[in-house]
Amino acid sequence: MRQTRRQFLRAVGVTGGAGALYGAMGALGLAPVAADTPTFVPPRPGDLGGRPPRSVVILGAGMAGLTAAYELRKGGYDVTVLEARRRPGGRNWTVRGGDTETDLKGERQTAGFSRGEYLNAGAARIPQHHVTLDYCRQLGVPIEVFAGTNADGYLYQVGDHDLSGVPVRHRAARADVYGYVSELLSKATDQGALDAYLTGEDREALLAFLRLFGDLGPKVDGDPAASFRYTGTGRRGYEIPPGAGTQEGTPLPPHPLSDVLASRIGYYFSLELRWEQAMMMYQPVGGMDRIAHALADAVGNQHVHYGTEIRAVRNTTDGVEVDHTGRDGRMRTLAADFAICTLPPGIAARLSGNLPTEVRDALRTPEVLDVGKLGVEYSRRWWELDHRIYGGITSTNTDLLNVWYPSYGFHGPRGTLLGYYNEGPYAADYGELRHPQRLSRALDRLTDIHGESAARDVASAFSVHWTDIRHSEGAWVMWSSREGAYERLLEPAGRVYFAGDYLSHANAWQHGAMVSARSVVEALHARVASS
Amino acid sequence: MRQTRRQFLRAVGVTGGAGALYGAMGALGLAPVAADTPTFVPPRPGDLGGRPPRSVVILGAGMAGLTAAYELRKGGYDVTVLEARRRPGGRNWTVRGGDTETDLKGERQTAGFSRGEYLNAGAARIPQHHVTLDYCRQLGVPIEVFAGTNADGYLYQVGDHDLSGVPVRHRAARADVYGYVSELLSKATDQGALDAYLTGEDREALLAFLRLFGDLGPKVDGDPAASFRYTGTGRRGYEIPPGAGTQEGTPLPPHPLSDVLASRIGYYFSLELRWEQAMMMYQPVGGMDRIAHALADAVGNQHVHYGTEIRAVRNTTDGVEVDHTGRDGRMRTLAADFAICTLPPGIAARLSGNLPTEVRDALRTPEVLDVGKLGVEYSRRWWELDHRIYGGITSTNTDLLNVWYPSYGFHGPRGTLLGYYNEGPYAADYGELRHPQRLSRALDRLTDIHGESAARDVASAFSVHWTDIRHSEGAWVMWSSREGAYERLLEPAGRVYFAGDYLSHANAWQHGAMVSARSVVEALHARVASS
Repeated sequence: MRQTRRQFLRAVGVTGGAGALYGAMGALGLAPVAADTPTFVPPRPGDLGGRPPRSVVILGAGMAGLTAAYELRKGGYDVTVLEARRRPGGRNWTVRGGDTETDLKGERQTAGFSRGEYLNAGAARIPQHHVTLDYCRQLGVPIEVFAGTNADGYLYQVGDHDLSGVPVRHRAARADVYGYVSELLSKATDQGALDAYLTGEDREALLAFLRLFGDLGPKVDGDPAASFRYTGTGRRGYEIPPGAGTQEGTPLPPHPLSDVLASRIGYYFSLELRWEQAMMMYQPVGGMDRIAHALADAVGNQHVHYGTEIRAVRNTTDGVEVDHTGRDGRMRTLAADFAICTLPPGIAARLSGNLPTEVRDALRTPEVLDVGKLGVEYSRRWWELDHRIYGGITSTNTDLLNVWYPSYGFHGPRGTLLGYYNEGPYAADYGELRHPQRLSRALDRLTDIHGESAARDVASAFSVHWTDIRHSEGAWVMWSSREGAYERLLEPAGRVYFAGDYLSHANAWQHGAMVSARSVVEALHARVASS
Repeated sequence: MRQTRRQFLRAVGVTGGAGALYGAMGALGLAPVAADTPTFVPPRPGDLGGRPPRSVVILGAGMAGLTAAYELRKGGYDVTVLEARRRPGGRNWTVRGGDTETDLKGERQTAGFSRGEYLNAGAARIPQHHVTLDYCRQLGVPIEVFAGTNADGYLYQVGDHDLSGVPVRHRAARADVYGYVSELLSKATDQGALDAYLTGEDREALLAFLRLFGDLGPKVDGDPAASFRYTGTGRRGYEIPPGAGTQEGTPLPPHPLSDVLASRIGYYFSLELRWEQAMMMYQPVGGMDRIAHALADAVGNQHVHYGTEIRAVRNTTDGVEVDHTGRDGRMRTLAADFAICTLPPGIAARLSGNLPTEVRDALRTPEVLDVGKLGVEYSRRWWELDHRIYGGITSTNTDLLNVWYPSYGFHGPRGTLLGYYNEGPYAADYGELRHPQRLSRALDRLTDIHGESAARDVASAFSVHWTDIRHSEGAWVMWSSREGAYERLLEPAGRVYFAGDYLSHANAWQHGAMVSARSVVEALHARVASS
């Protein structure tokens, strides 16, 4: 007789106690394994027996380069990191007051942020299941919550529908969408339209669930139209909030079904459900670059050469050579046993030297994404004071795309809001403007959503158009196919390895850069161990 | 010709700019007003002209008493707060290492928590729209995110179904429930079962939304069963997570529809959608009692008499008298112009003096809820290390009901987990046990969900059964009707006013206590001003 899983688990539980039950669940694939990270066996100094330490030159001190350097150093390798910028991190870049950047078009901005205020211009949030958090733990980088999805943030859509230009609280959109979906599915279920797919038990369980999920009215016998009605709910917010005494609260009325559907506000929910985006999420206290600095410190800053631009990379008969210019402008050549190139692929493709043509072509294959960010420091936290929004995201189909309220400094005298985090054509549009015009345009859009508060009390601002950022030339890349060019770059070109988020299935994330770097470290170490 | 709202708004927007548009939206009821707090006009010293300051004795230094005292003091009143405990806050109670409590059954616990670790035994989270946050801002109490709903927390149900005893990640439950709901509603919609309720445009918009919302497969022409299939999604988590190179990730397979429905795991979603519970939520840094202490400091600690038990309250011909015993055990009488009684209603009903019988009866009317909490300090943050859960809640229908992972001290060497936050019969069951047995039973249950980690590395623990806590005798009260007794208590008994969360539509919340206190302050002040 075949036992159900439940019967089996009960039997085990009875005789073996909770520990046995848990083990049995693991054997059945039922135990919670979902949030694991990719496996990694770091190299250890003892692995190579008495062999002399091998040298590795790492091109780029971004998150892939630093991770590779950190793991190789721990494994006993002789590591040198060459970095064009004067700072570690690459697209892990936190802009603070006094920081200066001149973009590829020649526009120079100096950030005027107050002490304690910052803009994470690149990487800015960490899911619980990313190895990025493991490095924070290992390196002692304090973390705090990154407020993502927020019920009190807005969804703001413009278009040919009646909710155009109406800021809808995320909670209101959820209540309306879930309410109408539940009402419609209840009606169809109750009328038997789904009997081919549901048992009688399923049907009853589904109706009971939907009643709660949608906050619906009851079934009205003989009146399908009046049954399971969604007529609004306090979940979506109140015109008069619940208060003292007799103030029960007057919920805001729902938006009509057709308006909700036509506005597409529900489309945003699929974002917050994603593997990488579902809350909770985290950020380092004080700025994302704390991770980059902690990694660089752990590698040993004497092994990281800043202000060093790579000119060429060559495989030689028994190693690699990297030509680079230092701060004095003089060309030098560094020889090593291996190289790991973590430059953005489009930049790596332009290096002189003897990388094979097929490798250069592969590096040029993926499409570079255009992304823009604008940090606006205000001397008044109007989003908290006027809107009661504490952290989180407002999503819109205007050219801002995403507005982030800061996840630190709550109730303080000032705060830095991410005025836009946009991409594609919107990023390109803002990118064509000079910084003051970007700010001016964004403030207009922010005012459309939030009212006049958003245009007042601006203390400073800093904008980034990643395509124009020297040494990056883009935000991240997208592969239309993971075959051919992608696969080619997973193999070393002679003794030159490639690593970066672009060589992972978590591109655009620090996690992707880190697991890619780890994977290369494992491959390189295995090669050395078997040589 | 009647304009649509959209046309009207566009017309205003064209001629008046964004500001005018925003104003017009307010006039139409479209502007974001949802997250306002109840109105309150605080008394000001100038309001009463040349009249001498009136005196108010406040019974209880919980959140209602402290709020009333704070607002009255700011308004120029002469305020005395009498509090039986040696601390302010009432059910705003943070337990730290060294704190001792002897319950009504005589069991004495001394908390052994390490420095920096604590248990918020009562109030423990604050929604963005609660005035509690306004007091934090005014009083300079730093806040941080309280992690509530967490995609990586578990939903754990036991019962007569195949998911019994299976810890399901919140994200997996969401993905499965939303997936199946979307599939079923897509099928019904596509087959025309809802044509009576949907226009052709609605129908297309709904199908497009559901495809995204449920992460569904496409329509298969002529094959309804194979259309819009939910077959799992990476949203729910991975057996092998997305990684470097070719590691695309292998999503965990979905649980079958019937199992998902029978398990009722979807019931938990209605909690996180609630007005009070939807993320983001907040907590004071370092413990909830920071608010109570800040309020007491602002009132002036010379005006708050701790260790003072109320014995009687009397209306006299032109004022009130309160009999109380101080730390020396001697009975004293305090006379004042008015009294505000913020004691739990059941305790207030037992006071001697001359409160009318109908008022005493009214105070005894609501049902007292039984609630238990257990804080367990571990010397290893196994929920982060073994489960990658950073803050948030696991919900279960076992007697633990709610398990909270701490929202502070991430990655630290230790952490204090809320082992259970239960109520009703479950709270009563644990309440009947002595503390060591409560801990032992809870560790068994925690192990069922999380595996053996949950039973190891226990450093200390402290449990609270609110019904047995002196001066509280329960967690909060529930009204079966807001008429009669409830209404009676909104009116003063002579010069004795009543305030507390139990006299609001936000009972069980500090916000309720605060808005109730404010309401009484307004009423008392209006009476004085018109006298």
